[in-house]
Formats: sequence, C-alpha cells, structure tokens
Amino acid sequence: MKIKYNLLKKEKDTMARLGSLETNHGTFETPMFMPVGTLANVKTLVPEELKELGSGIILSNTYHLWLRPGEDVVEKAGGLHKFMNWDGPILTDSGGFQVFSLAKAKDIIEEGVSFKSHLDGRKLFLTPELSIQIQNKLDSDIAMSFDECPPFPVTYDYMKNSVERTLIWAKRGQDVHNNEKQSLFGIVQGGEFEDLRKYSALKTVEMNFDGYSIGGTSVGEDKETMYKMVEYATPYLPEDKVRYLMGVGDPIDIIEGVIRGIDIFDCVLPTRLARHANAFTRKGRINLKNLKFKEDFTSVDPECDCYTCKNYTKAYIRHLITSNEMLGGRLLSIHNLRFLIKLTEELREAIKEDKLLEYREKFIEKYEQKN
Amino acid sequence: MKIKYNLLKKEKDTMARLGSLETNHGTFETPMFMPVGTLANVKTLVPEELKELGSGIILSNTYHLWLRPGEDVVEKAGGLHKFMNWDGPILTDSGGFQVFSLAKAKDIIEEGVSFKSHLDGRKLFLTPELSIQIQNKLDSDIAMSFDECPPFPVTYDYMKNSVERTLIWAKRGQDVHNNEKQSLFGIVQGGEFEDLRKYSALKTVEMNFDGYSIGGTSVGEDKETMYKMVEYATPYLPEDKVRYLMGVGDPIDIIEGVIRGIDIFDCVLPTRLARHANAFTRKGRINLKNLKFKEDFTSVDPECDCYTCKNYTKAYIRHLITSNEMLGGRLLSIHNLRFLIKLTEELREAIKEDKLLEYREKFIEKYEQKN
Repeated sequence: MKIKYNLLKKEKDTMARLGSLETNHGTFETPMFMPVGTLANVKTLVPEELKELGSGIILSNTYHLWLRPGEDVVEKAGGLHKFMNWDGPILTDSGGFQVFSLAKAKDIIEEGVSFKSHLDGRKLFLTPELSIQIQNKLDSDIAMSFDECPPFPVTYDYMKNSVERTLIWAKRGQDVHNNEKQSLFGIVQGGEFEDLRKYSALKTVEMNFDGYSIGGTSVGEDKETMYKMVEYATPYLPEDKVRYLMGVGDPIDIIEGVIRGIDIFDCVLPTRLARHANAFTRKGRINLKNLKFKEDFTSVDPECDCYTCKNYTKAYIRHLITSNEMLGGRLLSIHNLRFLIKLTEELREAIKEDKLLEYREKFIEKYEQKN
Repeated sequence: MKIKYNLLKKEKDTMARLGSLETNHGTFETPMFMPVGTLANVKTLVPEELKELGSGIILSNTYHLWLRPGEDVVEKAGGLHKFMNWDGPILTDSGGFQVFSLAKAKDIIEEGVSFKSHLDGRKLFLTPELSIQIQNKLDSDIAMSFDECPPFPVTYDYMKNSVERTLIWAKRGQDVHNNEKQSLFGIVQGGEFEDLRKYSALKTVEMNFDGYSIGGTSVGEDKETMYKMVEYATPYLPEDKVRYLMGVGDPIDIIEGVIRGIDIFDCVLPTRLARHANAFTRKGRINLKNLKFKEDFTSVDPECDCYTCKNYTKAYIRHLITSNEMLGGRLLSIHNLRFLIKLTEELREAIKEDKLLEYREKFIEKYEQKN
C-alpha cells in the first residue's frame, strides 16, 4: 500500500492543514516534526524513547546508509525497520542534500553527480536511478526523488537550468522505482525565484507523486526568503497529498511553515543542539554549560512533559555535559525532540480551534523574551 | 538506619554465601555485581535501565565527584540519590584508588596524600577525614574508608608500613564519620603477603565496621595471586557482615571470588569494554568491530535476556560502532552489565542448590571455548 493523506481540517485564517498520514507502519497526525536518524539511529536514542516522545515518523539518510553499512546489508537484515528495530514509518531522503553539502569535489553532469566520499575521499557517483534503487532496498515507507540542491544564492539562469535538471532526474527516478510498498515524493526547487518555484511545483505535480517536498531551503538564505520559498510553492500543490518542508527545525520556522500549509518537517537541529549542550525552552534556547545553572535544581523547561524534565535538573545535566558524559546529550536529545513534537501537537490543537495566529503570537512573544 | 546483612545460606562445598543486604534504599540479594557510575551516572545509561537489568546497588566515585561537580553541589541537590535520580542503594568509594591510579606526582605523608588533579594539574590534598566528610555530604548508603592502595608488587616492608597507615587512616575516618543513615566499611590491605592480610583483616574487624572490603586487588597481580589475596582475608571476616571485593569484574574472577566468600563486586570493565566494542558472551568475549559480524543478524549472545539481545543484531551494533554512533556503546553497556548481573543471579541459584563447583566447571568450559 502507498501512503494516504487525509485532510481533516483547514484553519480559517491561514493555509494551515490538520491531517493524518496512513502508512504501512502506522498512521500519524500532521503537522508533525520528524526526528532525524541519519545512520539508522536517532543519535543516542532507542525506538521506545522516540515513541514515548510522540514521534510519528523518523527520517534516515540514504547517502550515509549507502556508505555505511551499505544498502545490501540493510536489505539482508530485512529492511531498515527491522535493521534498526523501529516499527513506525520511515522516510529516506535521496542523498542529494548530503552530496551537495558534505561531499567534496562535486561534478554535476546530466547523468548524475560525481564526488568524493566525506569519509575517505573515495570517488563516488550518484545518479537519480541509483538513489531510488538504494531507497528501494532500504525499504523505507517514503522515498525522495534525487534532486539538485543549489546553495543560496545562485543566479536566475543557474537555478532555471537546475530546476529543469531536477525535473528530469525526478522522472528518471520515478521510472526505475520498484517497490510496491514504498511511496515516492517529488521535490519542488527554484530557489527564491517565484516563477521558478511555481514552474517547478506545477511540473512536479504533473508527474503525480505520492507526496511533495519543498527543497532548497536552509541552504544559507534568510528567514523571510525561506518563508517566501514556501509561499511560492504551496498554492500549486494538491490538497490531497502531504507536504514536507526539508531541513527545517527552528521552532518559529515550524510555526511559519505550518501557517503556509506545510505538514511535515525534519531537522538535525534538536539532536545536534543537544550534543552541544543547548536546549529549547519556551523562553528561548539555553546553553546548559552556563555557570548560572551549576546549582539550578529545576528542570530544563518547567513547561515540558518529557522524561528528562520530569526526572533531572539543570544542575545534573550541566554536570554531565561539563564532565563529557554522553548521558547529558542523550537527556537533552529527548528534551529537544519532545519540545518540537509537542510544538506540532499544539499547532494541531490550534488548527482545530482556528486559533493559529493567536498561538503564533503568544509563542513568539514568550520565546523571544529569553531566559 | 545502617545496612543489615542477612546470611541466608552457606554453600556446602565452598565458602560461598547467599545473603541479602538491607539498606535505606531497598534490599538486594548477594552475591551481586555493582555497576560503576563514576560521575553520578553509569555511562550512557539511565536508572530505569539499571533497574531493568537487575542492579541491586551502584557505585559512584568520591574522587571524581569531589572534582566535578563538587560535593557541595550534590549536597545542595539533596544528596547523590536525588542528584542522579537513582533511588536504589549507592556505595561510594573513598577516592583512595583514584588518587593512587589516576593522579600525578603523589606524595604520601601520614596526614594524607598530596597530588595533582588528573584534570588540570591543580594541587590537591586528600586525607582520611576529608574523604569521609565528602562521602557524608554525598549521602551514599555505604561509604568506604580512605586507604593506601599500593601497586603490585611492593616490598614486604613497604606493605607492612602501608597496612599500618591504612589502619590509622581507617580509625581517623571512623572518628569523623557523621551521617547516621550512612554505613562505613573498613578495607583489608596487605598485598600478596598472607600474614599481612591476616593482620589487616583482624585489626580492621576489631574496629567494628558495617562491612568489609578487600582492596589492593586488580593492581597488576596475576589471577592466582588475586585469588590468594581473597583467601588470606575472608577467614577472618565476620559472618554477619557483608564482604566486597573491589575492582573485580571479569566473569571468572567473580565466580572465584564468590567461591571464596565474597558478596559484592564492582568494576568499570563491562561499560568500558562496551564503549570499545567488546561484549561478554557465554562463549567468551567478542569484538563487534570484527568484519565477520557485518552480516550477522543474530543477537550478541543467544543465551542473554537483556534489552539489547532481545531487540538488536550483531550486524546493527557493529554498524553503530563502526559509524561512531554512541548508541552502540549504550546497547553493549546494557548487555555487558546484564551479563555480569545475570551471572551473579545464577551463582545465587547454584549456592541455593549446593552446585557451585559444578556451575563453575560448566561456565568456564564454555567461556574458554571461545566464539
């Protein structure tokens, strides 16, 4: 079975949508934040913890799994779900973003991208077909088309060519896709150019994918530009398909994305921040290394309901982090992920009650007041 | 309340004892392996996991907590249990072993030991009184006397003087100990010298501690010598007090210790091995980095009942470890700790059934056959 998106409600003042996504590994409500499990694990955490904090779906990275342990090992294990012991939905990206951001000495030709491995400098060549074939073997619930993800800014002419290339690559991937249980998403590109976003969206939708992503964000642009990139695309996406904004995990960006009609988000930010001692709180981000927390025996965020906040103090987590104890990063990863997932829960409530703009105002006012 | 040891049964063919230890934070059966939570956490794990794998008690290190976060922070948090969210029994060591093994530029005088911090080279001075005062503040269930822990080998004369010093230090610690809810253990030293072990045991027992440890093992001696160190001491320890062999965590050493009358063991080995990709199995130790496990979709040890073995394969754990994912060390820490705690559970059963020597033979035969 392919995924099925159910539009449950549209918010009255915005483009926000309440929905549910049915997959072969369970159904979850949207908007939803998706934790990133780069190498077949959400760093430091086990699946039971991800479930407890409300993760409806997780993401894993095709590029990383291709290099380690290799898609054949995952296939022999019975697919990614079985390999990593996660029985909920999984989305795999195409590897495109990693090739363009991590790898060195890139050479983009029509056939694909040749580049050097970020691990050992080995020469590699990734094509739209290979990306899809790897994802078929990983057996994720949702595969992404292989796209070109240019940095910001590039010239209009560069982006125009790039959009055409991404459309051709999307078609080539669709043609070789061969996994009845796996859905395939198209990706809208076009940078900050309104007409290119529209063109990319319309042409991608013509190919009739199972869902649509907005790519090319979080590549160096400012926030207002990112919001525009979303606004330029969503009006042309079908209402009966799910929409995924790639690589966005800042709390305010998630709210702004939802307001503009986005259903799913992913980002390494919550877990990466956690490993660097940073925590989201309702009053903005805090750094647990700060000396002022040395004898602070309150939880990281008094408004949070996560395992970490129910059981540990800032003083303890600060001690773990300043002592280089990995448990500190684990506890903050739980908190930061729960923070974003709870945010999407509250956004769903606000959509139900047609109070999304009011919710945004209150959230931002508090978040920017800082600790 | 001080701890209370109940001798439940003596095994017929050996000196092994089945017992239970009552503490202010719960009662557990002995023999028991005690996981090491150096810096107020058993590396990578949370208390719920330690409970699930059967930990009756954990150890934490006075030296490390003295340096980070400082005993005053722990005291202000409400003691070590509250600080680290572990409501079971805690034993703190005296810092003696760390001073002698970790610290640099040691100078031992009658007053105490001056040395340089292993963290920043800062000059520090630890005395028997200060060690006990720190432990009083940490508020562990069991504190250890501050002892001199010489390396192996030293001359008979050196050890003779050292034993006297340890006795004097034990008395000085006892005199300042001031925590009604905390028990205090004496430590038997004496190296490999039978008469010094006997003398140290008799004199320490005269001081009437709440329990007794055997120290000065795992400092470079061979296994037969270590077993002798235990044999030289246990006959002089009272039957109604618990006995703790410090720093021993090899499975066969635990069996040999139990046979010689030991009740409690601790060691960093299971968690340290885990972080270096090593796992205990019934057929000996394995290194998960080994290429032969790349497509091994069986559990780490088919005879293990731990969370890791129930849910993950060698191939997956190998992938995590070779990808430097911390989850690998976490999963192996759970397994290795459960391995040793299950071993002590089986030793308790063997004592009940008077089949300890038979158990030893079968265990060792299989363990040394290797994978």
